[in-house]
Amino acid sequence: MSIDPIDIPIGEPQVREAAKRLAPWAHVTPVITSRTLDSRAGCAVHLKCENLQRVGAFKFRGAMNALLQLDDEAKGRGVVTHSSGNHGQALALAGSLLGIPVTVVVPRTAPAIKQAAMTGYGATIRLCEPTLAAREAAVAEEIAEKGLTLIHPFDYWDVIAGQATAAWELLDQAGPLDAVVVPVGGGGLISGTAIAVKARSPQTLVIGVEPERADDARRSLISGKVEPSGDPHTIADGLRTSLGERPFAVISRLVDRIETASEAGIVDALRFLWERLKIVVEPSSAVVVAPLLERRLDLEGRRVGAILSGGNVDLGPFFDAMAARWL
Amino acid sequence: MSIDPIDIPIGEPQVREAAKRLAPWAHVTPVITSRTLDSRAGCAVHLKCENLQRVGAFKFRGAMNALLQLDDEAKGRGVVTHSSGNHGQALALAGSLLGIPVTVVVPRTAPAIKQAAMTGYGATIRLCEPTLAAREAAVAEEIAEKGLTLIHPFDYWDVIAGQATAAWELLDQAGPLDAVVVPVGGGGLISGTAIAVKARSPQTLVIGVEPERADDARRSLISGKVEPSGDPHTIADGLRTSLGERPFAVISRLVDRIETASEAGIVDALRFLWERLKIVVEPSSAVVVAPLLERRLDLEGRRVGAILSGGNVDLGPFFDAMAARWL
Repeated sequence: MSIDPIDIPIGEPQVREAAKRLAPWAHVTPVITSRTLDSRAGCAVHLKCENLQRVGAFKFRGAMNALLQLDDEAKGRGVVTHSSGNHGQALALAGSLLGIPVTVVVPRTAPAIKQAAMTGYGATIRLCEPTLAAREAAVAEEIAEKGLTLIHPFDYWDVIAGQATAAWELLDQAGPLDAVVVPVGGGGLISGTAIAVKARSPQTLVIGVEPERADDARRSLISGKVEPSGDPHTIADGLRTSLGERPFAVISRLVDRIETASEAGIVDALRFLWERLKIVVEPSSAVVVAPLLERRLDLEGRRVGAILSGGNVDLGPFFDAMAARWL
Repeated sequence: MSIDPIDIPIGEPQVREAAKRLAPWAHVTPVITSRTLDSRAGCAVHLKCENLQRVGAFKFRGAMNALLQLDDEAKGRGVVTHSSGNHGQALALAGSLLGIPVTVVVPRTAPAIKQAAMTGYGATIRLCEPTLAAREAAVAEEIAEKGLTLIHPFDYWDVIAGQATAAWELLDQAGPLDAVVVPVGGGGLISGTAIAVKARSPQTLVIGVEPERADDARRSLISGKVEPSGDPHTIADGLRTSLGERPFAVISRLVDRIETASEAGIVDALRFLWERLKIVVEPSSAVVVAPLLERRLDLEGRRVGAILSGGNVDLGPFFDAMAARWL
């Protein structure tokens, strides 16, 4: 593996500062345990419930931490990003709490409900064609014309430092852990997690899990450079994106292993979490529970933390069917 | 309203004893709060999460409390009940934990998955035709031939005392409350709740909520006797049954008000709890949240407890659709 040239400018001090900075704004999400889960997984699992974070995902931590560090001039001009998912909503809420104008570049094909969630927090939506080139052109235009600051969903150190606070809290709440298991999408959460965990407890394993069908982190570690993800057909919609360069630099140095989860394993884990633990999580969260239930991580008897990244899942069809039957 | 002749043999001492008796067996379920819910409801709501109780419903409390008080001879002969829902599962688990044989009389038409859940805990299933007469005949036969003890799902004082422990815990966890809102089905939960709440805090209102389409408690209080429920078409499957005589005796003396929830209100509240609070509850639980969201209980600015009775809902069609799309 080649040595990545990117310097990692955040460590324990930046994570501590981020945690302090976020304290008035973000929830300290609960950590839950389950005898049923432990008996299925063969280890003591501590689930960090970021599905209960504001906007229903860890993304609020990074977005808020980034906005809180802009200077007043940048705050006044506003920020732009290009996520129609959890980061877009998180940035919209963070901006609304701080009075910072937020513009989100969204492909025309994005579900109306997601756009509505962002405009509900006062964000401006700029629609573009659903191509990478169109998206980048739109973002560049917003930056050039209005002087907006780009708050990238994951390839941005202040965002990564914010995401790191979830694992930081988990260590406070759960006590010493032998391993922390975390999903891998663009890499903001796992790189923040690795920085936080290795700073406080170097012997604790940090294990990333990604869908088999979106195994770009695994491939990137093998080739030594960021490999593109394409547009993988996985139910874990939050994990379809390719790794960022900054997250890759962290992952290649601090993450112990990348594992994968099959689509069937993800759906089984999702069903387990809903039916047995009675918590609503999104498929990206179930990705970390799948290999635990299948006992594929060689963690029998260990104390394990797992980060449930979010709980935003489209229940529309389910409730429409319910309404059609009962109303 | 006529004075009900049934004496109420349980009060604070029996609830305290039940709580002590259940301590090694039942979960102390969490109480959760939500700023979003409070702002929608206009009051400070404390949700008692019995969806996180063993077998996913408060029913485990009553079933276990009843079995723990049988004498050794009765324990050896075993028990019988006639619920294919949460009480059947709760009794099956309680029996399996205590080594007491459990027989459940189940209509042939009950879903195979519910029968499997009970046999999974070691219960014996006796199928009968789906009529009240067939069910009662089957139960009577089990009692006459095998000397089994009937553990009625709600018309049974030790069951009611067990259900009372949920509200007892809620008062410990949430502090003083102006009102406790609780669903009304057969009446075991609401009568236990009323006994517990009025014993400790007589000024706290106890408000029952039932589906508009299953408003037998409301009608029973007007007529002064138990009015049958028929087979109401409500999504709140746990609340379709008629009130028991013992619960009715308690309700008519200790419950302050009975309110109703529309089917649309129940579905809205269910969706709110799943999407915003990220918790899986069954429709019977959403029944108590519906009038809070609609601000129909005249509790603005108050401290309110609400008991979420359970979380067992059939997600089969939802996950089947997911599997068909992704696997």
